[in-house]
Amino acid sequence: MINIAIIGYGYWGPNLVRNFQETKDARVVSCVDMNPERLALVKSKYPAIETTTSYEDVLKDPAVDAVVISTPVATHYDFARRALENGKHVLVEKPVTASVAEAEKLIELAAKHGLTFMVDHTFIYTGAVRKMKEIVEQGELGELYYFDSVRINLGLFQRDVNVLWDLAPHDIAILEHLVDEQPVSVCATGACHIGNGIENVAYLTVYFNNGMIAHFHNNWLAPVKIRSVMVGGSKKMILYDDMEASEKVKVYDRGVDVTTPESVRDARVSYRLGDMWAPKLDTSEALRLVAGEFTECIATGRTPRTDGTSGLNVVKILEASEMSIKKRGKEVKL
Amino acid sequence: MINIAIIGYGYWGPNLVRNFQETKDARVVSCVDMNPERLALVKSKYPAIETTTSYEDVLKDPAVDAVVISTPVATHYDFARRALENGKHVLVEKPVTASVAEAEKLIELAAKHGLTFMVDHTFIYTGAVRKMKEIVEQGELGELYYFDSVRINLGLFQRDVNVLWDLAPHDIAILEHLVDEQPVSVCATGACHIGNGIENVAYLTVYFNNGMIAHFHNNWLAPVKIRSVMVGGSKKMILYDDMEASEKVKVYDRGVDVTTPESVRDARVSYRLGDMWAPKLDTSEALRLVAGEFTECIATGRTPRTDGTSGLNVVKILEASEMSIKKRGKEVKL
Amino acid sequence: MINIAIIGYGYWGPNLVRNFQETKDARVVSCVDMNPERLALVKSKYPAIETTTSYEDVLKDPAVDAVVISTPVATHYDFARRALENGKHVLVEKPVTASVAEAEKLIELAAKHGLTFMVDHTFIYTGAVRKMKEIVEQGELGELYYFDSVRINLGLFQRDVNVLWDLAPHDIAILEHLVDEQPVSVCATGACHIGNGIENVAYLTVYFNNGMIAHFHNNWLAPVKIRSVMVGGSKKMILYDDMEASEKVKVYDRGVDVTTPESVRDARVSYRLGDMWAPKLDTSEALRLVAGEFTECIATGRTPRTDGTSGLNVVKILEASEMSIKKRGKEVKL
Amino acid sequence: MINIAIIGYGYWGPNLVRNFQETKDARVVSCVDMNPERLALVKSKYPAIETTTSYEDVLKDPAVDAVVISTPVATHYDFARRALENGKHVLVEKPVTASVAEAEKLIELAAKHGLTFMVDHTFIYTGAVRKMKEIVEQGELGELYYFDSVRINLGLFQRDVNVLWDLAPHDIAILEHLVDEQPVSVCATGACHIGNGIENVAYLTVYFNNGMIAHFHNNWLAPVKIRSVMVGGSKKMILYDDMEASEKVKVYDRGVDVTTPESVRDARVSYRLGDMWAPKLDTSEALRLVAGEFTECIATGRTPRTDGTSGLNVVKILEASEMSIKKRGKEVKL
Repeated sequence: MINIAIIGYGYWGPNLVRNFQETKDARVVSCVDMNPERLALVKSKYPAIETTTSYEDVLKDPAVDAVVISTPVATHYDFARRALENGKHVLVEKPVTASVAEAEKLIELAAKHGLTFMVDHTFIYTGAVRKMKEIVEQGELGELYYFDSVRINLGLFQRDVNVLWDLAPHDIAILEHLVDEQPVSVCATGACHIGNGIENVAYLTVYFNNGMIAHFHNNWLAPVKIRSVMVGGSKKMILYDDMEASEKVKVYDRGVDVTTPESVRDARVSYRLGDMWAPKLDTSEALRLVAGEFTECIATGRTPRTDGTSGLNVVKILEASEMSIKKRGKEVKL
Repeated sequence: MINIAIIGYGYWGPNLVRNFQETKDARVVSCVDMNPERLALVKSKYPAIETTTSYEDVLKDPAVDAVVISTPVATHYDFARRALENGKHVLVEKPVTASVAEAEKLIELAAKHGLTFMVDHTFIYTGAVRKMKEIVEQGELGELYYFDSVRINLGLFQRDVNVLWDLAPHDIAILEHLVDEQPVSVCATGACHIGNGIENVAYLTVYFNNGMIAHFHNNWLAPVKIRSVMVGGSKKMILYDDMEASEKVKVYDRGVDVTTPESVRDARVSYRLGDMWAPKLDTSEALRLVAGEFTECIATGRTPRTDGTSGLNVVKILEASEMSIKKRGKEVKL
Repeated sequence: MINIAIIGYGYWGPNLVRNFQETKDARVVSCVDMNPERLALVKSKYPAIETTTSYEDVLKDPAVDAVVISTPVATHYDFARRALENGKHVLVEKPVTASVAEAEKLIELAAKHGLTFMVDHTFIYTGAVRKMKEIVEQGELGELYYFDSVRINLGLFQRDVNVLWDLAPHDIAILEHLVDEQPVSVCATGACHIGNGIENVAYLTVYFNNGMIAHFHNNWLAPVKIRSVMVGGSKKMILYDDMEASEKVKVYDRGVDVTTPESVRDARVSYRLGDMWAPKLDTSEALRLVAGEFTECIATGRTPRTDGTSGLNVVKILEASEMSIKKRGKEVKL
Repeated sequence: MINIAIIGYGYWGPNLVRNFQETKDARVVSCVDMNPERLALVKSKYPAIETTTSYEDVLKDPAVDAVVISTPVATHYDFARRALENGKHVLVEKPVTASVAEAEKLIELAAKHGLTFMVDHTFIYTGAVRKMKEIVEQGELGELYYFDSVRINLGLFQRDVNVLWDLAPHDIAILEHLVDEQPVSVCATGACHIGNGIENVAYLTVYFNNGMIAHFHNNWLAPVKIRSVMVGGSKKMILYDDMEASEKVKVYDRGVDVTTPESVRDARVSYRLGDMWAPKLDTSEALRLVAGEFTECIATGRTPRTDGTSGLNVVKILEASEMSIKKRGKEVKL
């Protein structure tokens, strides 16, 4: 039995507690929050869980095997570092840290202490993304050409991070998961319309060495809610629309065939239009699988599917995008 | 009666002939194409129209008042220049020329000879864009924050221009029409997947001095067809979806209110969610209005709604975007 | 403070308890269910609520002011009758009873004892239907022509009632709420495909004296989920699509104008196409409003918006539809 | 070469002429219309086609092999009868005639003279319906349970036929084409809102002996345009949405499995949710295939896919529906 402490019981906290409680071989033993009212909520629902405003209590408690950190991103590093130093396994919400340097230190620390260090890239565990991964791995799309994501709505303006740090981690994590190739540089543009210098609309391009390109469009000020990812390959293409009630993932047997007779200048392109197919998706709650993965990796020592390195890869792109956006789209190497 | 010669009878030619034939005070008197088979088509439908493979014939013909140029973009300048030099009014397909320098010379030439010089930015004449213009002009959107366009599909790969030159002119012309403010610079990114160096997917950001931002996403390799423009303002927002059979333009009474108590750092954002409204749109054929505008401007000497300068403004952005895309997103001043 | 007992803690029970607990001037004091496991669930969440498998306990308890009956429809009558005879106010799930005779007896009983008797037609309390009611009442639609509802999906096959008794009550209640005119007769058709004589697909027409017509399409075996109501009037039309995330209600300024020059035979019809408008809808939880309405009506003696008579009106149509469906569409008077 | 005469050059006429002109082994030699202006239109486009206001001329002309009748439905019988009596093959627009008796006489007459007699059920020749036919024939849907069609919009009010005669023939022809089983009776309901006794909204149920049920919903007064057919079977289901730009036909691997342990009363239903698949559809113009089928059947003596009998089957249902609708849903045997 893995004993879990939840650090931060805000918006996501109740989901974390509920899912870990329902995970075989795991149980939530304590919960930390600065707000006694939040802790009272935990107690009323789960009288057996210890609640405290002191993180120290948890760090010192030998009964606690692992901590799950669900606090503002600026505090992730400090909470995670102290947990690892005290021999606790760590699962941290996305984005893993506020900087590349922080993420690298945590990875190093976890390795040094032989502890599990995982990031909660929840989307990776959805039925939709797992199916997409399967399709990409089987080579059905052929060579990957582009990855295009749009995540926009009339959304909660964050006060310390821009719209890319807020919304893009989901889709960058999906990109990182689907594509083996390493990205090489980014260009980002954006604008702030409320006068505080924090971009509320942003566009991010990620370059790869092999010619693939990825793009992210995020906006807190859109009239409609869009959550879509398009992945284009030489053989087939995927459209993942998370707003669809069913048929979230559609695979199009569609593309072009290029014939290059003598010189590339004469390349001829012919079109291919075939069937569309929407595979059945597993509808298990993604966070349940996250809780299961964390628990199992602690028990077996296996590396999590979304380990510190995938968290780091996402933060690398976010950090570079912030530099680029401030320099009006200047390419920033990764 | 304005006598029109059509130069180039390709894909768009039949639409031009039909619409000018049905325009009061205009008639098509001749048609030029290098391909005798195309000319035979004209003859079979319109026996009264003279057909010729020689542009010279038309230039010399005193009965011809105006030419309509519907040829590959690389040839626009030369055809238009010679027409203007021979005292003919000119309507040219979009994009107006292949370079800023060319467009500037044609504008100068038209002015010098006192001739009408117009570009066929057809979309400006659609019921949808005319209604959007009306809404923007009445100040219903408030201060304009962003303009976001997506025009993608599994489309015809062009052999001499990239996907921005092919698809973006429509939407850049709409931007140019709706927004009075001048854009100041662009950043563009993209990729080519067929090996000939011509981008088939591209992303373009256009910056404005007042904080507004515009973005264009074009792709010849998308599994689905999307034609959408989103315009966000401080009061309301528009979503224009050209793929909708009806209700193409939706106006959302939706946005945020920002209160800045002491410092911008403390800016508080509250949400506003109101009605949505889809105005009735005029369904006249846009090209008919183009033909009418050209005819009327010749007759009256009035400046066309889409004159050489609007054509030039579009080409300025396209030319800058091409420089930027080749330098991986480097900002290029306009 | 109104003391409530919940009878039946199945699928809908937790929602009832939660909403009454959060209603000012009401509190849930006891809960009855035959299944001790369900009762244990109540206890774990709400330790202060008494739980029992004996309805008698509740009927005898003078502290209980009102009962909320959420049990299989066949048992509604008996539970409600005994409650009313014991001086308890009654809220019962839809459909109010299994027959017209039962509903009539309960209405009579409630009147005799001066008790509040209400049916939980939840949809009537949604922001969408309240807005539709407002629009209809203001006469915006003009004369009502038709009401067309589709409620289909791959749904839970019921074992004792057909698909009309299961799915149509929602929409018949909406019809009953929006339209003042009384319906006069029904025709219903349908089919059973699993061999037990219970229709899993059905179509129901309801006639009105004034020429209005209503139609209901219900299906447990549909590949897609549709929840839509169309209301057509002489001036405007409404489309209510409950599957839309936002803009559930759309009002179309669309219709025909009829000119009858000399004889109806020469009636000329001209079309009207105007704006579409999607009003902002209140998003309060409908069941919260149901709980509030019940509580307030008990306190003030006011007649509930969805009283026994509206429950009866729905059951009249259901009972008649069942007779009609068994006689292959024969018209049955109401 | 089959020489064709077109009778009636109204809305559909130009499509008929164009498609027959482009059909190998056929050519249009003459065109009849009462309106000289319509005939002038033919002449201007096709100078070689003889035009006349006299049907007699065509009937007497030995050069004419076949006539295509595209006139108001009330006149179909007379035009077709005279053509057959004069030894001309006949293609007639849908619905084939205004009554069952008329259709039967024409079938008899065609057989007697050994002539091809075909009805233009255009939809049968679309890529969508041909693909559906293929899927149904291969048994992919299993046993057919229901056929549900909706064809509604703000449409042209007809002055002599009701909305079923106007819109339902398309979908009844599709039903007739997909389902081998013979329908046994119909129930129809509807209403007229413009005072001339011609129903502008109608609902039609068609019963089959094997338990299958079909339903048609037609409305000239709907705020939105819907053109959909749902076909449910024991194994899979089809949704055909003709308003979709692509993916018009979707096949859902979705349904229920019924286990009947001891008595049907205990039938247990379990759900099956699988993939969805949208096959690529042939996009040839349906009317071109109609013209080809007519020409080929004349040349070879083969029976057309949509012969007089399929026309008759559609009219049988229409005629019965009209009796039923006037008797408020009374079942009418076929």
